[in-house]
Amino acid sequence: MTFHQALAPAAALDLPQPYLLFLGDVTEKGYAKTAFGLRDWAADRCVGEYACPEATVSLGLDWLTPAEAAARGARAMVIGVANAGGVIHDSWIPHLTAALAAGLDLISGMHARLGDSPALKAAAQKHGRRLIDVRQPPAGIALATGRKRPGKRLLTVGTDCALGKKYTALALARALRERGLKADFRATGQTGIMIGGGGMPMDAVVADFEAGAAELLSPDAAPDHWDVIEGQGALLHPAYAAVSLGLLHGSQPDVIVACHEPGRLTMLGYPDYPVASLPEIIAVNLQMGRLTNPAIRCGGVSLNTSALDEAAALALLDSESQRLGLAVADPMRGGPQFERLVDACLAS
Amino acid sequence: MTFHQALAPAAALDLPQPYLLFLGDVTEKGYAKTAFGLRDWAADRCVGEYACPEATVSLGLDWLTPAEAAARGARAMVIGVANAGGVIHDSWIPHLTAALAAGLDLISGMHARLGDSPALKAAAQKHGRRLIDVRQPPAGIALATGRKRPGKRLLTVGTDCALGKKYTALALARALRERGLKADFRATGQTGIMIGGGGMPMDAVVADFEAGAAELLSPDAAPDHWDVIEGQGALLHPAYAAVSLGLLHGSQPDVIVACHEPGRLTMLGYPDYPVASLPEIIAVNLQMGRLTNPAIRCGGVSLNTSALDEAAALALLDSESQRLGLAVADPMRGGPQFERLVDACLAS
Repeated sequence: MTFHQALAPAAALDLPQPYLLFLGDVTEKGYAKTAFGLRDWAADRCVGEYACPEATVSLGLDWLTPAEAAARGARAMVIGVANAGGVIHDSWIPHLTAALAAGLDLISGMHARLGDSPALKAAAQKHGRRLIDVRQPPAGIALATGRKRPGKRLLTVGTDCALGKKYTALALARALRERGLKADFRATGQTGIMIGGGGMPMDAVVADFEAGAAELLSPDAAPDHWDVIEGQGALLHPAYAAVSLGLLHGSQPDVIVACHEPGRLTMLGYPDYPVASLPEIIAVNLQMGRLTNPAIRCGGVSLNTSALDEAAALALLDSESQRLGLAVADPMRGGPQFERLVDACLAS
Repeated sequence: MTFHQALAPAAALDLPQPYLLFLGDVTEKGYAKTAFGLRDWAADRCVGEYACPEATVSLGLDWLTPAEAAARGARAMVIGVANAGGVIHDSWIPHLTAALAAGLDLISGMHARLGDSPALKAAAQKHGRRLIDVRQPPAGIALATGRKRPGKRLLTVGTDCALGKKYTALALARALRERGLKADFRATGQTGIMIGGGGMPMDAVVADFEAGAAELLSPDAAPDHWDVIEGQGALLHPAYAAVSLGLLHGSQPDVIVACHEPGRLTMLGYPDYPVASLPEIIAVNLQMGRLTNPAIRCGGVSLNTSALDEAAALALLDSESQRLGLAVADPMRGGPQFERLVDACLAS
């Protein structure tokens, strides 16, 4: 399986690989989701990890300095952090310039542009290296037309950020291809774009063009072709719902899969906002999605059970399936539950 | 009455006035809403109108060349067009450079930046004039916090674009001030910003920061102070719903007023999309708005009855009020219906 699918020319990326993964100063796994995503889905293209001394999160890869990574063949260091606001912290700069000095390009998915740092800009010029901002949308995105496009589309939606929408989309795209179907993973965030080698950074698009960007991401396709689109944010999130709604409208999904992390009671970084229930988030996505695709339906639920042991996880998947009357699986565990979820997504 | 209210420093604008209003090549009134808005709400600051020969829309102001307008005291020519995509057409360039040569600054609310045109950039430099892009959001907008802010907020929402959300907000802000209340008009689009002299160009903000921009637009205020916020787009619009939802969440309105144009059956520029009904658009705005303000309620309805004669308009306002069980008025007609709408917005 490969996720290196051609996108519309303006959105195509060609990133130097393999990578050294940089973890910044993160002390909470949720903020290192970019690095974990690359480790899990592009392991053959990651030579090791590196971080500031104050970081406490590890990927379990070999710890390498930039020079050591370059000696092992790395061509770029990826900033594997997704913090609130997408900020490049000052304390990272010496480590980033060290990577440039060691002969690595820098790849960033942060909102802040690498080239906006005079120190990085100077170091890149001095060492003849590239500063690559994955979060920079292509120029010339058009307004959404609302025109229904041929081809099948599946969108992962969530009750919050950082709970499995990307992994679920990756796993479903892989499963569809393993069944012999035509399917492409469509990345919408920095990690997905780094894994897939292309996509649309939906949260960096100007709001007026948000739905149009989603239309560009999954263009006309053969009637039996599936685009499996990585969801962003949550429709009931106080900061990110605009991104989620534009993506939903422009994606025109035939099928949504609702992603949730059992036990997460409040939204990450928003302790005053309870996480919506699965029935709520499914209902509101179907309700709002009907505007551009009246045939939208829910294929089932993806639970992130990484905090549970195997027995507890399987018991929860079964009880939630009974409670909701839907296929419920953890794509990272696979198994018959996941096959039933794939079946339910394909049922028409 | 003045709408020149101080905003957060980053959003403040100080535009050169009075204006000459430029109509481009428009042949449909809906695309000249910027010019009409300025004529109606900043008449004392508009010396006349000017357009390409192929334009067929007129504001009914004095037709003046840029040189004639400058002789009458104009300090800037405003591009009074709001076309799909916010594009500056090539055919306008000679007329825009003529204005610069005549000693006028240029003010634009288009998505395209004036300075991106080499011809305009060169002409502005040659003549020592300014190119002012009203649609450029301030730098450093933060993510939305979702924190409930003190002060009262009213947001106009709509069943489509270009049917009265801005005029309704302007009229309501004026009415509240005429009743001795503390009230500010908060502009969210290019015309409103030009009228009010400040605001936030919500459709030009990067999607991740859309709700945060709305929070910045209407900051903490006294408990008895009203921010009357200009709505954008429509929550059931296939292209612009992301803008509308971010604005709704960040505005945290206590009161919405739903705006509609009777007789408009399909969305402007989207003939395959029927305009939602008023009950639908009210219900979905209340539903989604509850996330950040559980006390949100509908104050009533604003109908754009400009296509009807006085008797037909008043009859429609009354029948719609009975049908919906809400205060229904046309703010441009005023009268007892409008006073009842203001009463209903203030009722708690």
